[in-house]
Amino acid sequence: MRERKFWGWGFQDQVLSKEEEESVEKRIAQNFDLNEVEALPIPLAKDIELPKAKVIPPETLKNILSDDHVERLNHAYGKSFPDVARAMLGSFPNPPDLVAFPNNQEEVVNILDWANENNIAVVPYGGGSSVCGGVETDVGDDYSAVISLDLRNLNQVLEIDKSSRAARIQAGIFGPALEEELKKSNLTLRHFPQSFEHSTLGGWIATRSGGHFATLYTHIDDFVESTTMVTPGGVIESRRLPGSGAGPSPDRMVIGSEGILGVITEAWMRLQERPKFRASCPVLFDDYEDALNATRLISQSALFPANCRLLDANEALFNGAGDGSKHLLILSFESADHDMDAWLKRSLEIASEAGGQYELPQEKKEDAHKSGASGTWRNSFIRAPYYREASVRRGIIQDTFETSITWDKGFEFIETLKERASKAIKEISGKESTVTCRLTHTYPDGLAPYFSYTAYATPSTMIDVWKNIKIATNQICVEHGGTVTHHHAVGRDHRVKGYDLQRPEGFKDMLVSAKSGVDPRSIMNPGVLIDPKGIKHKHWMED
Amino acid sequence: MRERKFWGWGFQDQVLSKEEEESVEKRIAQNFDLNEVEALPIPLAKDIELPKAKVIPPETLKNILSDDHVERLNHAYGKSFPDVARAMLGSFPNPPDLVAFPNNQEEVVNILDWANENNIAVVPYGGGSSVCGGVETDVGDDYSAVISLDLRNLNQVLEIDKSSRAARIQAGIFGPALEEELKKSNLTLRHFPQSFEHSTLGGWIATRSGGHFATLYTHIDDFVESTTMVTPGGVIESRRLPGSGAGPSPDRMVIGSEGILGVITEAWMRLQERPKFRASCPVLFDDYEDALNATRLISQSALFPANCRLLDANEALFNGAGDGSKHLLILSFESADHDMDAWLKRSLEIASEAGGQYELPQEKKEDAHKSGASGTWRNSFIRAPYYREASVRRGIIQDTFETSITWDKGFEFIETLKERASKAIKEISGKESTVTCRLTHTYPDGLAPYFSYTAYATPSTMIDVWKNIKIATNQICVEHGGTVTHHHAVGRDHRVKGYDLQRPEGFKDMLVSAKSGVDPRSIMNPGVLIDPKGIKHKHWMED
Repeated sequence: MRERKFWGWGFQDQVLSKEEEESVEKRIAQNFDLNEVEALPIPLAKDIELPKAKVIPPETLKNILSDDHVERLNHAYGKSFPDVARAMLGSFPNPPDLVAFPNNQEEVVNILDWANENNIAVVPYGGGSSVCGGVETDVGDDYSAVISLDLRNLNQVLEIDKSSRAARIQAGIFGPALEEELKKSNLTLRHFPQSFEHSTLGGWIATRSGGHFATLYTHIDDFVESTTMVTPGGVIESRRLPGSGAGPSPDRMVIGSEGILGVITEAWMRLQERPKFRASCPVLFDDYEDALNATRLISQSALFPANCRLLDANEALFNGAGDGSKHLLILSFESADHDMDAWLKRSLEIASEAGGQYELPQEKKEDAHKSGASGTWRNSFIRAPYYREASVRRGIIQDTFETSITWDKGFEFIETLKERASKAIKEISGKESTVTCRLTHTYPDGLAPYFSYTAYATPSTMIDVWKNIKIATNQICVEHGGTVTHHHAVGRDHRVKGYDLQRPEGFKDMLVSAKSGVDPRSIMNPGVLIDPKGIKHKHWMED
Repeated sequence: MRERKFWGWGFQDQVLSKEEEESVEKRIAQNFDLNEVEALPIPLAKDIELPKAKVIPPETLKNILSDDHVERLNHAYGKSFPDVARAMLGSFPNPPDLVAFPNNQEEVVNILDWANENNIAVVPYGGGSSVCGGVETDVGDDYSAVISLDLRNLNQVLEIDKSSRAARIQAGIFGPALEEELKKSNLTLRHFPQSFEHSTLGGWIATRSGGHFATLYTHIDDFVESTTMVTPGGVIESRRLPGSGAGPSPDRMVIGSEGILGVITEAWMRLQERPKFRASCPVLFDDYEDALNATRLISQSALFPANCRLLDANEALFNGAGDGSKHLLILSFESADHDMDAWLKRSLEIASEAGGQYELPQEKKEDAHKSGASGTWRNSFIRAPYYREASVRRGIIQDTFETSITWDKGFEFIETLKERASKAIKEISGKESTVTCRLTHTYPDGLAPYFSYTAYATPSTMIDVWKNIKIATNQICVEHGGTVTHHHAVGRDHRVKGYDLQRPEGFKDMLVSAKSGVDPRSIMNPGVLIDPKGIKHKHWMED
């Protein structure tokens, strides 16, 4: 098995080339006007000392509970900036005492039973790609121990129903393995989050993952037909129903529950046929407000572009998809059933009437989404997490925050957030930073802006600098009416000055109570989303 | 103000013509081979005696709490068959002690505070069109009194956001008034349940109402942008967000909560521009399995017809839209933005390849959906509830049950349900009955079949006969893997041998606990959906 990095994104063998490393270093020096850039060495597992495990696996579970040093390192953190930074610095004060690798649902039940009896906290773990502290094993002092429960052995497509275009899939399957299996039946889940390669179905459902596509069928929420979740109180399995009005949806309580209610073990998922027809065209705008307006009108046209991604001029520039003078709207359509020319044509009419400029490609290419501006963007999108770890080693913070808002506030919201975030970053880090924006998803009633920034810090200051910027961006999103996260989940990091203020208080009461109904001892992922009944654990960001 | 019937559907002045009455009587005589048909008189309010109200309004609330005789009659039942039947028979053993008419949210809060302090059960009431015991005030002996809380004075469109195409709307507004108001801005909610004329926004949200349209944007669930709900524990107001991945959706707990958590007072709703382009064509099939297959393929094509309603041959016949020899698929498209000819053309290709026969209309008509087979169907659909009350007076049960299922089981499911239901009706009523089926909604992964039947009974047996048929149809839907209700809600009547078996036990635990988080004394709509903690009230159907 390929080994995953405990200190960064992906597998141990997935690293930047020497040239790429150098280009990162050069860019950092240029950006921040530095003569020299200090780089932390990549840490070695053997150099890191971990506290002794506080619990010994019982005889009946010893085959599926591991105290392996590397596994404990691997399951201590997710992949947020401070996660990677702390790993780079060799700081692992709160690793899991044990890592569980159940092979089937029954073993998940057994692990939860044992943990429940022994007051052991359980942190469900899929691909571990959380960027918000969702899989971190820092659960405080209320538990006798903490285990990370890794679903990687529940990785099968169990059943395919071609007629309904649905499949029963185990939660621990990773994106590429899932798509490979579905491809044999000419089907696809068509859900491609940026973390696709290193995240799992169960993780997507638990965190309300957003796919790559911009409109309509893109969120994992809409693909879920039914779920099975193991809670300390028992197994909850919903029915396969295409639609039902029988009470509040059981699945909608599971979707987004981030491990606080139980462990998702499998789900029936809605699939699609693999697209055969594609049509796409980039559109350029001189004026950002025009560009937003065009995007809004297209989003309200019921044409449902697969992509409708608006990059502001700087975002386009930084991703090699423009010269920084124009805003870029990437527009594309896909279908398994019919030619999409009429759809593209009408959307270009709308864009053009709103001030967009475009040239229709001379010939249609099957892989148009992989070439031109779309292609450049696509590659940059996929490589971004690898570039980030090169920055981390040099103390430089490359991070993002993302939110959503209704169209009426759209333009002002984006401008204000860029301005306030830039100002906060300068105040906190001491150096200027450009905050760029793209829209990841658009809706008939609003948009999801995604902001990127690079901030100056050094390996010794980076965690503090990041923390203060994070708190500031959480606050900015929520104060201006947005959500603290559109598709990165809440975890622990988005609670501080964010989710805790955003969610209606009464809904918190319902959630805390609902949790106590299935997890009366509050062992499931404590500190994520809510404080369980009677427990208040201080988050490291709240120092 | 026009007075609503306490004994039937709609307003007092909305009755069948003499000719229509006679045609009903004639059809009943023919159907069941009867020489004479006995008809109950329409009851008069003054002839009905009600138990004395068990509670007196406090001084501070006396202007908004009424013990008016007719209001108490009007709020004792919804509009299910047994509701209308009991009203026709003058049987009102459990009317509300008082009816509340708050004028604003603050008054809703005050009423709930008072009720909570005095152990008074509260049944939220919108249009009162529930067909599953959702607004019935029979709450058992655990409460000192029961009030029906009527939202009709919260009936304003408070704000329109044209850019996001959304509006903030009070929960008590009725369908026609809402659409009239939105029309001024060329907008529409485009949600047209059969009850449209006599149901309210709050009721639609509380019951997960299904609109008239067959695919995509039709369910109220998808139109909700944010909600405000008054619970005994406080007001819960969610943010206006086009999309958010921050934890389980608060709105999804409100949607379908059927009054057990609180009173929905207002919501921001997603709107659409009024459609300008229409294209439609009926398609005929000799073979039902072919027809289902065509419907499936169109539902999976991402063409998103506004209507894709398959009537089996008998359903078409009984609704005057066919001669009973062919199955009818009503296919139509609508858009506010673009001509839909390409969409219709492609869907007709699919239907034709699957064995459908059609003739494209010679000329496009703006109001094609109001003429031809579509139009006949439409009128029959809207008039159905009025016809029903003429049947009730003669003891004849005209009723429906509706469910959903994935495509893989579709054909067999429909055939089995028709067969089992017919058999049950014959056993229970003693006479043959034809169960017909239409699809009300279709999904990429499944379909929502809606079954209609007419069963023989007399005014003195009708309630018992209905009850036994209802229990049988609940059971049939759930036993074969469907839902006990696709869009009629659960209320009290769908629990018996239905929802109580269908919902995952662990989800019930979550729901019961969540309720206790905001309604610790369990005053909200007791007996609907679940039994609150520590309370088990016997439903009249369970005798």
